[in-house]
Amino acid sequence: MAYDVVIVGAGVAGLTAAIYARRRELKTVVVSIDVGGQTNLAGYIENYPGFDSIKGAELVKNFYQKAISLGAEFVFDEVKEIKKQKDVFRLKLSKGHIDARAIILAIGKKPRKLGVKGEQEFLGKGVSTCSICDGPLYKGKVVAVVGGGNSAIDSALYLAEIAKKVYLIHRRNTFVADEASVNKLKSKENVEFLLNAVVKEIKGDKVVKAIVVEQEKKQKEIAVDGVFVEIGFEASTDWLKGLIGLDEKGQIIIDSLCQTSMPGIFAAGDCTNIPFKQVVISAGQGAIAALSAYQYLTKGKGALVDWK
Amino acid sequence: MAYDVVIVGAGVAGLTAAIYARRRELKTVVVSIDVGGQTNLAGYIENYPGFDSIKGAELVKNFYQKAISLGAEFVFDEVKEIKKQKDVFRLKLSKGHIDARAIILAIGKKPRKLGVKGEQEFLGKGVSTCSICDGPLYKGKVVAVVGGGNSAIDSALYLAEIAKKVYLIHRRNTFVADEASVNKLKSKENVEFLLNAVVKEIKGDKVVKAIVVEQEKKQKEIAVDGVFVEIGFEASTDWLKGLIGLDEKGQIIIDSLCQTSMPGIFAAGDCTNIPFKQVVISAGQGAIAALSAYQYLTKGKGALVDWK
Repeated sequence: MAYDVVIVGAGVAGLTAAIYARRRELKTVVVSIDVGGQTNLAGYIENYPGFDSIKGAELVKNFYQKAISLGAEFVFDEVKEIKKQKDVFRLKLSKGHIDARAIILAIGKKPRKLGVKGEQEFLGKGVSTCSICDGPLYKGKVVAVVGGGNSAIDSALYLAEIAKKVYLIHRRNTFVADEASVNKLKSKENVEFLLNAVVKEIKGDKVVKAIVVEQEKKQKEIAVDGVFVEIGFEASTDWLKGLIGLDEKGQIIIDSLCQTSMPGIFAAGDCTNIPFKQVVISAGQGAIAALSAYQYLTKGKGALVDWK
Repeated sequence: MAYDVVIVGAGVAGLTAAIYARRRELKTVVVSIDVGGQTNLAGYIENYPGFDSIKGAELVKNFYQKAISLGAEFVFDEVKEIKKQKDVFRLKLSKGHIDARAIILAIGKKPRKLGVKGEQEFLGKGVSTCSICDGPLYKGKVVAVVGGGNSAIDSALYLAEIAKKVYLIHRRNTFVADEASVNKLKSKENVEFLLNAVVKEIKGDKVVKAIVVEQEKKQKEIAVDGVFVEIGFEASTDWLKGLIGLDEKGQIIIDSLCQTSMPGIFAAGDCTNIPFKQVVISAGQGAIAALSAYQYLTKGKGALVDWK
C-alpha cells in the first residue's frame, strides 16, 4: 500500500516534516541513511530560538523522539531513483521500493572540496571536514582552517580552544559569517589570519605535514598537523535532474510554500535554493512542506488552513 | 542616527528576526505594543520541535530574553506610518519617530469576528476570543466554541477539561485542523458537535445566556454561559496599503526570502500570505527576514551566504 507521504532525509527539515505530517495523521515514512544529518556535527547551537544553547546532537535527538512518538516510520536506506506512476511516486531504494502519494525532499548538503593536490589523499589522515568530530585529535598541535563562512569561523573558534595554533586561511578579506563570531575569533591570541590567501596543495608523507598557500602571488609552505576544509556545502542532486527544477548550484528550487516544479514533490532545508542554511529555517520549512503536502493530498476536501 | 533595521512586532517572528539581526551585529530596534503576541495565549505548544511540550508564554519569554541578551533595543509603541526618504525609512510612532535603513514587518494577526448580533455587545461578558485567558471563568459551566480550525479544536479541548459541557459549532462537517486533535476531541464525553451549523445571534441580559444556531435551515436556541469565537485571524494591514503588496485577505505578500514588493522592507510570520500559521514557521521566517535584510544592507560588500 502506498504511503501518504515519504520524507527523504532525517535531518532537522525531514524530522520536522515528519512531526507535522503525523500531527495531520498522514501515513508517513522517512527514508534516510542516518538521523540528524549535519546538525549532529554542529557542536553547540546558540541560534535555535527557545534554547539559549544546546548541543546539535541533543536538539536533533529531541526532534527524532518526537517524530517516533507520533508514529512516523523510519527506513534506513538510500533512495536511488524516483518515478511517477499515475498519482503515486515509486522510490527505488537499495533494497526494494516505497510507494507514496507525495514526497518531501530534505536531503541536506555535503561538504565542498577544495580540489587541490593532497586533499583526497590525506582525507582522514590530517584532512577533515568536521572539526567537532576530529578536533580533539589535534590537542596541542597546529592546524589550518580553510574558509570564511560561519562553519569556518565556528570551527576555528572551537579549534582555538584545543590546538596550540590555528591558521584561518580565507581567499577574501571579508567574511560571510556572524560578526560576533568573527570578532571573537580575532581576539584569540593563538589564531593567525591569512586573508586573500588561496590553498594550493596539502603535503605530507603518511599524514599531513604542511599546507601550501598563495598570498599576493607568492607561495609559502606552512607546517601544520591538520587541515580543516570548511568552505561550505553542496547539494547531491544529480539523481533528481530532469525530475524537478534545480538552480545552477544544484539546489532544489522551491517557492514560499516549499513546492518544487513537480506537483506532489516538496523540498525543505539545506537542499533548497534558500541561501541561508540554519536549523530554525530548516525546521520552519519542514513544517511548511508537510502542511503543503497535506493540502496537496486532500485537495477537493475543503480548505486546509486556519486562515479563511 | 538611523538604525540598521527596525522590526515591527515582538511575537515569535519579530523576536527571532531580532536574534538573527543582532547575531549579525546590526543596530536593531524592535517596536511593539507587547511582547510575545498570540503565542502568549497559546497554552501548551506541542509542535515546536526541540520541546515535547512547552507553555507558549514560556517559549516566547526564552525568545525575548535571547534577543535582549544579544543587545536588541525595544520601544513599546505603535507604528502609525512608514515613509521612505532616500535610503532611510521613517516610522512615525505615537510618540516621535524611528529611522532605519531596513524594516522587518512581523505584526501578526488579530482574531476574526463572527459579525452577528450580540457579539460586540457581550464581548468580555461571556463572549471571548481567548480560551486560555478566559477559560478558567467557566468552571462547571456550559460553553460554545465556534470554529473548525486548530484554534477552535484546541480551545474546545482545553475547555472540555474545565467546563461541564462544550458545544463545538462549525459551519462545515470537515475540519481544517490536526486530525490527532480532532479525534481527541471526539472522544470527550462532555463535547457535543454541531456541524454544518451557523451562529445567528448571541443573546443575554447583562451577560451571555444563549446562542442561536441555524442547522439544516432550522434555528434553535442553546443555553450557554460563554461563547468562544475561534474562527481564525486577520491581518491589520490597512495602514500599509499603497506601500507594499497585500493579498486579497490583506496579508503581506512575500517571496521565499521574505522580501515584500518594496526593496528594504521584509515580512515574517502570521502577517504574511503563507497560509500556515505556526510558531516554528514564524521563527524560520524571522531568521530568513533578518538574513535577507542583512544581505540588503551590506550589498556590494560581497556575498553573505555560506554556500558559494
